Amino acid sequence: MSELSIDAGRLLGRLHELGRIGRDAQGRLVRIAATDADKAGRDLLVAWMTGAGLDLAVDRIGNVFGIWTPQGAGGADPVMLGSHIDTVVNAGIYDGCYGVLAGIEVVETLRGAGLVPARPLVVAAFTNEEGARYAPDMMGSLVHAGGLDLGEALASVGTDGSVLGEELARIGYAGDREPGFLKPSAYVELHIEQGPVLEREGFPIGAVETLQGISWQRVTIEGTANHAGTTPMSMRRDAGHAAARVVTFLRDHVTASHAQSVATVGSLRLEPDVINVIPSRATFTVDLRDPDEGRLRDLEAALARHLEELAAQEGVRVSVERLVRFEPVVFDGAIVALVEEAAGRRGLRSRRMTSGAGHDAQMMARICSSAMIFVPSRDGISHNPREHTEPDELAAGANVLLDVASRLAGIG
Amino acid sequence: MSELSIDAGRLLGRLHELGRIGRDAQGRLVRIAATDADKAGRDLLVAWMTGAGLDLAVDRIGNVFGIWTPQGAGGADPVMLGSHIDTVVNAGIYDGCYGVLAGIEVVETLRGAGLVPARPLVVAAFTNEEGARYAPDMMGSLVHAGGLDLGEALASVGTDGSVLGEELARIGYAGDREPGFLKPSAYVELHIEQGPVLEREGFPIGAVETLQGISWQRVTIEGTANHAGTTPMSMRRDAGHAAARVVTFLRDHVTASHAQSVATVGSLRLEPDVINVIPSRATFTVDLRDPDEGRLRDLEAALARHLEELAAQEGVRVSVERLVRFEPVVFDGAIVALVEEAAGRRGLRSRRMTSGAGHDAQMMARICSSAMIFVPSRDGISHNPREHTEPDELAAGANVLLDVASRLAGIG
Repeated sequence: MSELSIDAGRLLGRLHELGRIGRDAQGRLVRIAATDADKAGRDLLVAWMTGAGLDLAVDRIGNVFGIWTPQGAGGADPVMLGSHIDTVVNAGIYDGCYGVLAGIEVVETLRGAGLVPARPLVVAAFTNEEGARYAPDMMGSLVHAGGLDLGEALASVGTDGSVLGEELARIGYAGDREPGFLKPSAYVELHIEQGPVLEREGFPIGAVETLQGISWQRVTIEGTANHAGTTPMSMRRDAGHAAARVVTFLRDHVTASHAQSVATVGSLRLEPDVINVIPSRATFTVDLRDPDEGRLRDLEAALARHLEELAAQEGVRVSVERLVRFEPVVFDGAIVALVEEAAGRRGLRSRRMTSGAGHDAQMMARICSSAMIFVPSRDGISHNPREHTEPDELAAGANVLLDVASRLAGIG
Repeated sequence: MSELSIDAGRLLGRLHELGRIGRDAQGRLVRIAATDADKAGRDLLVAWMTGAGLDLAVDRIGNVFGIWTPQGAGGADPVMLGSHIDTVVNAGIYDGCYGVLAGIEVVETLRGAGLVPARPLVVAAFTNEEGARYAPDMMGSLVHAGGLDLGEALASVGTDGSVLGEELARIGYAGDREPGFLKPSAYVELHIEQGPVLEREGFPIGAVETLQGISWQRVTIEGTANHAGTTPMSMRRDAGHAAARVVTFLRDHVTASHAQSVATVGSLRLEPDVINVIPSRATFTVDLRDPDEGRLRDLEAALARHLEELAAQEGVRVSVERLVRFEPVVFDGAIVALVEEAAGRRGLRSRRMTSGAGHDAQMMARICSSAMIFVPSRDGISHNPREHTEPDELAAGANVLLDVASRLAGIG
């Protein structure tokens, strides 16, 4: 198979063409789900799918599928290659779009070579992966996987007060297929890493074997506001200092305990937030992630113990609100091995890794064998116009996808 | 002298009567400098001063002086007892007013007993001590001491856009005396502690020997915003974590180094302040105080060294802006000893202490022998309607002021 390759020029050209659609007055890419900009992007995608000979299907949550059913493959469960084309505000051009357009590339390459898979191939673009306008994110794939009721999803009210179902109808992408009508035998998602690991370690391909579990909590610490000049250190109940101890504890604990765990305090606010008043209240978020559920629970337990000790030592009250909790996803080992093999045959170094970000693949993993392929992100930057992956790296990833999809679909 | 005592009932009655003046629609005490409420408070004060036989003088910055010049004392420099009657928003009734009204009490008690001091006695109420509307705080005493140009002070623009000079004229307290026209031989300020030390340690009297030096800095730490899920701990440049390290360093360092130093991080903000983004920027304030200038410099130096190490260790950029710097004030040892003696003779336990808050006495110390007397503040609370000192503690403090003023003015 290795001699067959995708058309890198065509792939790059389409990425840039799609990336020009949905620019605002300041030139920012804002192709937010179910907006006019999203419609324009979808229309272009549909044109490319149709041009590649794919049969179009749109389901009621707006997921777009381009389906290739080769002669004799009609009865088999398809292999699905997908991702999303909606973006955040001020996005880069690769996140999501790369996986969808590479899927079309795979189909066109195979068809161009006259190859006939034993299974249908489907290229999927899921609705509202980013969640920039409607919650939750990864909505289209979640509905497809049966994890969210269609009616509830369509009733989602956006940050702008709009209703998703009405917006999908308005832009012409409220389809008639029932969500989940396609039952893939396998799902493979090619994506930029959105992190720094592959670039820093010099691997062109990541064989993604897990997707981190996520634990989001909001911690509130209540102490006593007092005069910064007249209150001796020994008599303080300083909510800000207690919060700072949690931040340094998390760093120290996670660094010492396991290389794959990450802990982040991204938001922190003090009250009354005045230079000469000891903070009476600190409110902050804790984002814990680990690809292993047991370790994620250990992390949560260690934080809980630390907060208990802190309350006693600092004389503060601590309360915790759980915001989000997702168990880790373990991808299909056989597909991960195929990714490694495919990379190896093409002379590309690969490493097994975890995905720190959420992806449609985590929803699809609920209903079929799934895995992901990562390519490097320059400086780990994503959700930003500086998002970048080198053209040869994009081509390499798409060729690995080609090889993996070919094997899964019964070619070669 | 110890048999002579002030009229505690009269003092308490006046404190509560003055405390009823300047209430807003919600019942909050808001007798902000140079407002109509301040005028009403000043008018009442002037009536009490006049009633006590004091000659009234108002200077061009609005400081109010009630002057008792006994027969034969006209040529001597006066002893001044004072504080302020302006308040913060939602204030208590004791801060400032206690020292002024106790000063009137001293005069009335001495006159009532037919005693004739060798020096004039002056009761002073300084303009805008709180700085709630016009900056800087302690303005009236600062102008009196020659530390701030009169024209500059009068031109101060308030938080509400008003001009102090115009407001003083409007309320009838733009006087005609030149600031500093009175040259006291000594200045004594009786004040509630506004901190928890006397109450917690069981001392009714504080002999204030120093006033803390203050160092205010704003620290900005710049790291790199990155995805909370995809960025390994070892590759982070987390401005929030770096800021937390500074907070815990300050606590540990100050606690270990000297019991009289205090360090506070009262305000802290993160950017972008989002749950799943590593903070790119942390901006926070550092409030350092110590009654000894050398130790305050050591503290500042230790912070600077820590920030340098931090920049190297965490890969962040650190910048520091100096906001405020006052050297500590050392009060007059002879007056402090008089306070201790007076308390002792009345059977009141006293302790030497530092003032953590700023007071008019620190400005007056520039031009004459000065000191302060503290009485306990319940729970250390001030600038709050819950501000409270027990009646017997208020009376005890005023009696110590009576004895000290008597000695300084040449009675007994």
